Amino acid sequence: MPDRIYNFAAGPAALPLEVLERAQTEFTNINDSGMSLLEMSHRSQAVENIMADAESDIREVGNIPENYHILFLQGGASQQFAMVPMNLLSPNGLAEHIVTGHFAKLAYQDAQKIGNIRLAASTEEDKFSRIPSPDQYRLDPSADYIHITTNNTIFGTEWKTLPKTGDVPLVADTSSNMFSKPININDYGLVYAGAQKNLGAAGVTLVIIRDDLLKRSPDILPSMFNYNHHVKSKSAYNTPPVFGIYILGLVMKWLKRQGGLESMQRINEEKASMLYEVIDNSDFYKGHANKSDRSNMNVTFNLPTPELETEFTEYAASNGMVEIKGHRSVGGIRASIYNAFPLDGVERLVDLMKTFEKSKG
Amino acid sequence: MPDRIYNFAAGPAALPLEVLERAQTEFTNINDSGMSLLEMSHRSQAVENIMADAESDIREVGNIPENYHILFLQGGASQQFAMVPMNLLSPNGLAEHIVTGHFAKLAYQDAQKIGNIRLAASTEEDKFSRIPSPDQYRLDPSADYIHITTNNTIFGTEWKTLPKTGDVPLVADTSSNMFSKPININDYGLVYAGAQKNLGAAGVTLVIIRDDLLKRSPDILPSMFNYNHHVKSKSAYNTPPVFGIYILGLVMKWLKRQGGLESMQRINEEKASMLYEVIDNSDFYKGHANKSDRSNMNVTFNLPTPELETEFTEYAASNGMVEIKGHRSVGGIRASIYNAFPLDGVERLVDLMKTFEKSKG
Repeated sequence: MPDRIYNFAAGPAALPLEVLERAQTEFTNINDSGMSLLEMSHRSQAVENIMADAESDIREVGNIPENYHILFLQGGASQQFAMVPMNLLSPNGLAEHIVTGHFAKLAYQDAQKIGNIRLAASTEEDKFSRIPSPDQYRLDPSADYIHITTNNTIFGTEWKTLPKTGDVPLVADTSSNMFSKPININDYGLVYAGAQKNLGAAGVTLVIIRDDLLKRSPDILPSMFNYNHHVKSKSAYNTPPVFGIYILGLVMKWLKRQGGLESMQRINEEKASMLYEVIDNSDFYKGHANKSDRSNMNVTFNLPTPELETEFTEYAASNGMVEIKGHRSVGGIRASIYNAFPLDGVERLVDLMKTFEKSKG
Repeated sequence: MPDRIYNFAAGPAALPLEVLERAQTEFTNINDSGMSLLEMSHRSQAVENIMADAESDIREVGNIPENYHILFLQGGASQQFAMVPMNLLSPNGLAEHIVTGHFAKLAYQDAQKIGNIRLAASTEEDKFSRIPSPDQYRLDPSADYIHITTNNTIFGTEWKTLPKTGDVPLVADTSSNMFSKPININDYGLVYAGAQKNLGAAGVTLVIIRDDLLKRSPDILPSMFNYNHHVKSKSAYNTPPVFGIYILGLVMKWLKRQGGLESMQRINEEKASMLYEVIDNSDFYKGHANKSDRSNMNVTFNLPTPELETEFTEYAASNGMVEIKGHRSVGGIRASIYNAFPLDGVERLVDLMKTFEKSKG
């Protein structure tokens, strides 16, 4: 194997090499402290600084104002599927979900265990190949919140225009496209994202919540499930996932060095369009997602037969490109190209796709 | 600062240097894969192997039979404070808590938010300086379970003989003394432990649950809070905290190289008794905990005045011994000497205590 492979995994996924090398260098002895960050008390000044820095860099990168709180939690997006309704749904209230993929459906199903949830729209009958257009759903203006999933990892679709929710807070699982482009946080009441795609490593969940929503958290919630409680204790009610927060902080500094989110968006659009161009100019490769809803993060497509897909996957692996197989639930091919996936890896895949198609022509 | 400092932190706490060095060496490229473990899909064979190895080593180290399930969860012990009653308490059932410290009290308080919880005993009026003796409480044989905290980090006490609970499952927060000595898992229905004291790094919680208890988990629980669900998906319903599980696995292999838990117990008793001997032979240092209940993990004591305690802490730091200050809620001095804390660090502290006392004599 080479020193560095092209890793198209959907998450956990490729991280910037310079982030990994920095973490490696100071792994056993951080800031000349004589200990590893893994050994350091979460009540120490050093760890408090790492957490404060990560928060401050997130605010800078995402342009997040002070009326939004930034939390570092655990349990991934999946735990938020339950925590969102536990905190934001009033006793007799209603929330609405728009279901555009596998994780969106799980979020909808888990939320139903907590309270009254309405399915405002679903594109499941179209194999989640598209995002519903505004004329295909009607939102209830009295809902406690509307939940969407901004990018659908498995199917390769992405919301390009957010639904208009008026005064109803929009809640979004942004796990797979957070900070891949500028975000206007004022469009949202709450966003959450597992870190292991665009933000860092598995084990830390970023939650950004608007201040006025905190008063909804019922006192009767156990401490670890209460957003208001986590805000008051600055994400350190108990021992936070310190190492994951540190990696996330290093990724934020890397993002700044790349020129921030506008720059990242330009690069991501360039990477995705190179792959979509091959697909659009081919009868051999067939894209799964509707053109207007295609994701810049996860490019999904099929070859004429499952056998050819297997052969393609193996051919890619023998050329140093791994984890390109589609999700076990849908098959096909999926190239996940998050922020940290390098442009030259996409160029290599483009060449490989053309060569492979020609060899079968 | 020296390359390596003596870190008496209560958790996150000292880890074996050879574990840290191994993780550092393969940090950017694990098993010649061309990628960091942080970038590796949790559905990859490599990660599945790491998780299976960690489980198998835990079973070997702790002598855990197949009728107990091993889970790697998130959210620390604090999340278990809620998950235990959510899963094990029947709708009209009762659970009993024995409260012997700060975290035991938090567990009791959070459980009350879920259901009917009885306080079987508390030693709070004695400033948690002791563990209640069996004649000081009476357990209800119809309870769904009894909850204890096997070691009390802040106060420096430890259960030496478990309460007799008959057929009622004993549930224990073992965060601060797990695998510091042999454990007879058959004494318990369920044990849980945040990893950041004896087992590894923050961000992973070890849960060991007896098979017959799984049927108690109500279907209505959100997926991430359901033990039965986690068992069925082998701790990988969503992305598990892969790096934390890997570190925990390396610590298990280190434990085996130390000779396992019998050997660890001998070393831990030796370390603790060296410090308790200084305290017992001194009028200057005064132990907080009852002699018969003293912890081998956290040695807590006071000096004649808070000013002397501050001076002692600073003197220790200037001699390369840090994080020796007592918990912010109780003050005093606390030396946490978990498995990975080296014997020579304890010898250094013993010398320091004697020198300091003499200088004030």
